[in-house]
Amino acid sequence: MIKVGVAGYGVIGQRLADGVALQGDMELVGVADLLPTLSIQALREKGMPYRLFLVEGADRQKFDGLGIPVSGSFAELVGQVDVMLDSSPGGVGLKNKALYEKAGVKAVFQGGEANSVADVFFHGYANYEKGLGANYLKLTSCNTTGLIRTVDCLDRAYGLERVAITIIRRVADPGDYHRGLTNALQIDKAPSHQAVDLMTIMPHVEATGILVHTPVTHGHIITVLARGRDGKKITREMALEAFGKHERIRVVSLARGFLGNASLFRYARDLGNPRGDMYEIGLWEDSVVESGPDVMYAINIPQESVTIPETIDAVRAAFKLQPDSASATSATNKFLGLGKWLKG
Amino acid sequence: MIKVGVAGYGVIGQRLADGVALQGDMELVGVADLLPTLSIQALREKGMPYRLFLVEGADRQKFDGLGIPVSGSFAELVGQVDVMLDSSPGGVGLKNKALYEKAGVKAVFQGGEANSVADVFFHGYANYEKGLGANYLKLTSCNTTGLIRTVDCLDRAYGLERVAITIIRRVADPGDYHRGLTNALQIDKAPSHQAVDLMTIMPHVEATGILVHTPVTHGHIITVLARGRDGKKITREMALEAFGKHERIRVVSLARGFLGNASLFRYARDLGNPRGDMYEIGLWEDSVVESGPDVMYAINIPQESVTIPETIDAVRAAFKLQPDSASATSATNKFLGLGKWLKG
Amino acid sequence: MIKVGVAGYGVIGQRLADGVALQGDMELVGVADLLPTLSIQALREKGMPYRLFLVEGADRQKFDGLGIPVSGSFAELVGQVDVMLDSSPGGVGLKNKALYEKAGVKAVFQGGEANSVADVFFHGYANYEKGLGANYLKLTSCNTTGLIRTVDCLDRAYGLERVAITIIRRVADPGDYHRGLTNALQIDKAPSHQAVDLMTIMPHVEATGILVHTPVTHGHIITVLARGRDGKKITREMALEAFGKHERIRVVSLARGFLGNASLFRYARDLGNPRGDMYEIGLWEDSVVESGPDVMYAINIPQESVTIPETIDAVRAAFKLQPDSASATSATNKFLGLGKWLKG
Amino acid sequence: MIKVGVAGYGVIGQRLADGVALQGDMELVGVADLLPTLSIQALREKGMPYRLFLVEGADRQKFDGLGIPVSGSFAELVGQVDVMLDSSPGGVGLKNKALYEKAGVKAVFQGGEANSVADVFFHGYANYEKGLGANYLKLTSCNTTGLIRTVDCLDRAYGLERVAITIIRRVADPGDYHRGLTNALQIDKAPSHQAVDLMTIMPHVEATGILVHTPVTHGHIITVLARGRDGKKITREMALEAFGKHERIRVVSLARGFLGNASLFRYARDLGNPRGDMYEIGLWEDSVVESGPDVMYAINIPQESVTIPETIDAVRAAFKLQPDSASATSATNKFLGLGKWLKG
Repeated sequence: MIKVGVAGYGVIGQRLADGVALQGDMELVGVADLLPTLSIQALREKGMPYRLFLVEGADRQKFDGLGIPVSGSFAELVGQVDVMLDSSPGGVGLKNKALYEKAGVKAVFQGGEANSVADVFFHGYANYEKGLGANYLKLTSCNTTGLIRTVDCLDRAYGLERVAITIIRRVADPGDYHRGLTNALQIDKAPSHQAVDLMTIMPHVEATGILVHTPVTHGHIITVLARGRDGKKITREMALEAFGKHERIRVVSLARGFLGNASLFRYARDLGNPRGDMYEIGLWEDSVVESGPDVMYAINIPQESVTIPETIDAVRAAFKLQPDSASATSATNKFLGLGKWLKG
Repeated sequence: MIKVGVAGYGVIGQRLADGVALQGDMELVGVADLLPTLSIQALREKGMPYRLFLVEGADRQKFDGLGIPVSGSFAELVGQVDVMLDSSPGGVGLKNKALYEKAGVKAVFQGGEANSVADVFFHGYANYEKGLGANYLKLTSCNTTGLIRTVDCLDRAYGLERVAITIIRRVADPGDYHRGLTNALQIDKAPSHQAVDLMTIMPHVEATGILVHTPVTHGHIITVLARGRDGKKITREMALEAFGKHERIRVVSLARGFLGNASLFRYARDLGNPRGDMYEIGLWEDSVVESGPDVMYAINIPQESVTIPETIDAVRAAFKLQPDSASATSATNKFLGLGKWLKG
Repeated sequence: MIKVGVAGYGVIGQRLADGVALQGDMELVGVADLLPTLSIQALREKGMPYRLFLVEGADRQKFDGLGIPVSGSFAELVGQVDVMLDSSPGGVGLKNKALYEKAGVKAVFQGGEANSVADVFFHGYANYEKGLGANYLKLTSCNTTGLIRTVDCLDRAYGLERVAITIIRRVADPGDYHRGLTNALQIDKAPSHQAVDLMTIMPHVEATGILVHTPVTHGHIITVLARGRDGKKITREMALEAFGKHERIRVVSLARGFLGNASLFRYARDLGNPRGDMYEIGLWEDSVVESGPDVMYAINIPQESVTIPETIDAVRAAFKLQPDSASATSATNKFLGLGKWLKG
Repeated sequence: MIKVGVAGYGVIGQRLADGVALQGDMELVGVADLLPTLSIQALREKGMPYRLFLVEGADRQKFDGLGIPVSGSFAELVGQVDVMLDSSPGGVGLKNKALYEKAGVKAVFQGGEANSVADVFFHGYANYEKGLGANYLKLTSCNTTGLIRTVDCLDRAYGLERVAITIIRRVADPGDYHRGLTNALQIDKAPSHQAVDLMTIMPHVEATGILVHTPVTHGHIITVLARGRDGKKITREMALEAFGKHERIRVVSLARGFLGNASLFRYARDLGNPRGDMYEIGLWEDSVVESGPDVMYAINIPQESVTIPETIDAVRAAFKLQPDSASATSATNKFLGLGKWLKG
């Protein structure tokens, strides 16, 4: 049993904790945070299923005042684990790394940290083998994680040469007030970092892209134009066949009622998934079109939860729990209950 | 055990089914619908925890094509129950009523039906006794249900003479595409029906109000200005004391991080509540202010789930399971797990 | 001719400059700003109808690089005027005041400054006489300005004792990206500052209120519950009669197609008003309702332009151009073309 | 002087009327509509700069009741013109065509009509010559019109083989309440009609695309991936050089403050353009990127006004006012004041 701690019990940290708790070969030791946020207050109301540790600078009295039990300090948590999943605010992970190094524990960082924090920039499907035995890994960001699932999928099946992406980005998470956008589409300097990151993970594929922020909270949509290696034609049917077998891609359709990103969120809520989360990306069957040698398609990225499976894959790589991507992702998927819908 | 069926497995119907299934003295026989919506597809993916019956006009082949098991016709469902909870689209309930009458089953309708469909226009706290033994009851709408919780609460504690409300209404539910509003506030003719409905349920209180639609999906906010009977002063402290004991009102604060309607949705998701639902309304401690003899406050109405407890109260009234409002709402609350946060 | 300068050529400053330029008894000397914003770039593309001066800290080269002519320094502008209209970012006005005092020029500040910056907290209708001859005046904020138009209107006609308001606030201006709100309603601590400010301007009226931010950009909506002095009944007809004669209140209706705040913006665009602006607030005829002794109504506040007329009134007061509110507002209105629609 | 009438004084019709009125070689005879909409009420408040005619089914009394002068019937308008610009709701244009044929007047329809209504599917730059002398022409839709400006521009300069587009579509116009989207991105079946339409107008270019609706009201954003004919490389500099000379394309940049679609609307308002309109599309310099042989860029489509210039081009073609695209678009641009910013 790999002993795991989580630093930062926010949007991502909560879901990391839940995901780890579901793994049969991992044990969640506890979570750490700075403030008695709503998420921590909810943890208390649920009866503290996870032990809470306080990072440096936390005001213990505030937690006491709200009746929130504290199990110790961040250093104590780090001292009890084999690996930390660090989902602290961007930049804090680098500071934490010193503690991890001192304690001799491995760590997996999220996309908000600088690449330099880690030895390996990691994706569970596209470069699992690079992470084998590594001490410090950094996950791709939410958009890049979901995007690479599909690019890697086509690349493994048929070979890819080039992709061009348009990222229609949700601007805030549900419950955010500190950022937002009202009646505006905001554009970023091109190429988007997701295209650049894709090339870092998959250096044999050339990528470019443009990102536009939109005033919604549930799920980015990305359109992808992909070209087969050496101009080899990938038909609509070929693409759908490959996507249809992937355990972290849900092929959905307008005809069945999936009209946009809000449908996937609603469906996940109706499924009874905790928090209405979905680990899979959605891929619209009706969006897959050919143009000459190219194939184009659109996917939905559930930004709050999409990186959880690949982060758990990273733990598998760091401890060499499985030798390769196929067996590692399969193990993660089994514990998370992914892919069951494929069988009926 | 009261045998209960649900007509219409949409936003409200799903939640009614879940709520009934939690009651120790009720049994959910099944649910009925017309189309294989996303909610029905989710029911199938969950393994059909509830049996599905098809209403007249449903195309059985569509359900078969999606592998959705069907247990029979709507008439068959009606034939097996003591009471139907009807959350069909507005107007359909009236048509269904003929079937209910023929089969000799009672029914509780939602706010979208005309008042004339029912013998009693019902609220679990404000007029439970009127529903005792009734055959056809209609619930107040979501806003009115939540609003009356607070108005009845102050009225019971101190006596009320008059309220004026402003309803800041969410325009669509999460997952809706057929309606919506973009960068606009839309105003309705005054007085709003909620004020009129309140006077029907609580004829000794005079009410008026204005409703404005806003482009959000999670939770209406209502401001209420209340005046004590015969001008009797109700202080901020008196109001908060009464609200603080109510099992279907959560007193929240800006200081604890509840900054708006999205915070309550986020908190309910973090609590792990199915679908991120909350049965309680939120009431902001920081919004309670006095002005001369009046007290003003703001509440949050979780529109998808708020009427579930009062609908279950209506079943209790129809079958005289409890003799009065206090014992009936207490039974419903116990089975739904409401009020536990009050004790710590 | 009163010589007028404008500090800060942003959302408000541009409109102040345009409004002053329309006054037959005032002369716009120039405007001042720090950066070559889009508004300044537009000024250049229009051929510099107003002379531009640079405040301290401005980088002249940036302006030169964009081909924007500069007429001098802020101090030079201040040296050529009788009065400065200061619409700098909040807090900067106080710093600027030292310059104004040194140069012996009067100034009118906008609502974002602290009250202490000015000798008089001013509204053109409600307390014009207090501003007569004053050197430093501060305007009420956009919401308070529009709100007081209606409260003063009823108070003059019939006498008022008390108001309770709910402010449904637009969260950002069109073109803003630095602030915004996405799918959330955000609540502020009560009472809202607008209620408190109203009592400062009109101390004989008691006021309270709650403010909720909403994700829209055009026009706040405020609901007002008003009670006549000593409980004297103000009927719907009495209220509409008084509002209907006011040159800065447009009585509109749902029946004519004014469905919300976006209709008023659209109408102003269709009128050909520069920037689609409207100086008048909208008041919905269909929103006016009675409840016992109280009358309730809803108004629309065009936040970008509503304070312009009252700011010009402030100049009239400072220089005693007119002896009282009636004659001063009438002069401002005539030059701005207000009230013409009242005559047909 | 070509005598022009406008059918349908809505979002597009108003702007067509204004655009025609600016042409030195055209005369606006009048406009026709069915209902006394806000736009018609605004026309009255402006003093009826255009004569109004009523289409069949209009209730004259409603216009009289609002004091709106009526100049005659639709048939009378048609009898006085050489050409009708038909911006009626989709489908009505086809019905109107019978009247136009009977009266022997030409007509230009907007994108909402079926292609079969016209002899020529028209774009002022891409296929002006096809429209020479035609009796019935149909404009491309707003997105296609703006998109083709850029595709034709690159094609003329360097030759194009293929484009793939992602349309990030505004879901409603400012002032719309009958449609809207709240916190959702909605996807359409691919390929989008804009890609198909582009191939109809420019048959030598292959196109595909995906369209996503977003909850904003000002301006679609389209990303375009373009490939040179026979794989000929078009560099970023080449693309920008061609775009930079186009009188209906404004090259803008993030550095100058154009952060998204809302910046272009704000800039047009600050320019003092009527209704805050812009005839030009925006093209972000910072979005232009290369990937292998492809060049990618993002444009902004001001949906309310973008088709006005090309519609006027269509009148030029129908009456052979100019022999070719270059001279015709140049004439239209001169009268509309386009391209002046290019000279500084």
